Amino acid sequence: MKLFTYFRSSASYRVRIALQCKGLPFDYVPVHLVRAEHRAPDYAARVGDALVPALETDAGDVLTQSLAIIEYLDETHPEPPLLPADALGRARVRALAQMIACEIHPLNNLRVLRHLTQELQHGEDAKNAWYHHWTRSGLEAFERQLALLAQARAAAGLPPSRLCWGDQPTLADCCLVPQIFNAQRFKVPLEGLPLTLAAFEAASALPAFQRAHPSACPDFEA
Amino acid sequence: MKLFTYFRSSASYRVRIALQCKGLPFDYVPVHLVRAEHRAPDYAARVGDALVPALETDAGDVLTQSLAIIEYLDETHPEPPLLPADALGRARVRALAQMIACEIHPLNNLRVLRHLTQELQHGEDAKNAWYHHWTRSGLEAFERQLALLAQARAAAGLPPSRLCWGDQPTLADCCLVPQIFNAQRFKVPLEGLPLTLAAFEAASALPAFQRAHPSACPDFEA
Repeated sequence: MKLFTYFRSSASYRVRIALQCKGLPFDYVPVHLVRAEHRAPDYAARVGDALVPALETDAGDVLTQSLAIIEYLDETHPEPPLLPADALGRARVRALAQMIACEIHPLNNLRVLRHLTQELQHGEDAKNAWYHHWTRSGLEAFERQLALLAQARAAAGLPPSRLCWGDQPTLADCCLVPQIFNAQRFKVPLEGLPLTLAAFEAASALPAFQRAHPSACPDFEA
Repeated sequence: MKLFTYFRSSASYRVRIALQCKGLPFDYVPVHLVRAEHRAPDYAARVGDALVPALETDAGDVLTQSLAIIEYLDETHPEPPLLPADALGRARVRALAQMIACEIHPLNNLRVLRHLTQELQHGEDAKNAWYHHWTRSGLEAFERQLALLAQARAAAGLPPSRLCWGDQPTLADCCLVPQIFNAQRFKVPLEGLPLTLAAFEAASALPAFQRAHPSACPDFEA
């Protein structure tokens, strides 16, 4: 498999984590977003959304969108699973992942931040305020959801979660860790989010997550 | 089941389509977003993201995030399926859905448009330009992806798609129809998107999609 990725891309980071959790070898194909390599005609001709990540399978099929790619990897390489075995658990984990992938990250990726400064002529302070607002409010919702899930687990007689859901990495952790990494880079205040940060710390300590870290990527730039 | 929904909410509309496709009865619980009923303490206490839609199952579990809810419905009520039977097909359909749910819709929902006008003091013209920019560029990517998928189907000896993927409604159609409905409401130019609009028209003609339409909702306001 080939992964088209950029070390700092949050969505790429999610897929790198999934590949590392499953121990799947892959060719790392760097696509430099700041240099707009994803807009190059030969890339966009194969990748409809012209974004990273994209995964080229061994059969030559090109898959896009990080959560769809991770679910594909989970279905085609089931061990260790990145989703719970039961439908209710899967719904909860997918919802946590989507709280990041559909509510926080889309408002704060590179092209949106550039649009704010270049098209709408906002300065750096306004750009950072925008980033902080959506990340912080999204993470507060995430924290509330983790608290509700903790109640649900207790009511069902399940032990407390060590990661986002249970004690094995899931799709939710694949999304949370890159989001917190980015939040830290943009200096978003993270106080008052104990469940979220505990899950982040527990996942970050796992070797698979460390191997997927931006600083471990061949195209890393300090 | 109870669906917490708002007639004009695009994400709620997706779930209504899925429920109608599967012929599942549900209690329609209106949550008026413009009146901020989703921020009421008793709602937010049960729904971590304080958004619509939320689905309360017959067992009393509350599920959030539209795509996660639809996958839950598809797993617990498999007929008719809203995802293809093969992993590659599922990855393609999920990616189409996510091109809307993660790239277009999050930038254009009510709270973001309000933030632009109220916090950032942009006028109506700038707000509409923002809406048009992200919707149009996102739909152009969607069109490119449908073209790539048409090539892939031809190469695999499959007939052309009548809807987003194949001739049965999928998760992708559940997302596309509400997005185009909203784009039309905001007068986004839709020329040059033949595959996208053909899928929209074909899906919109289906009774299940018509029963889910905002104008068919009990809380509809003209």
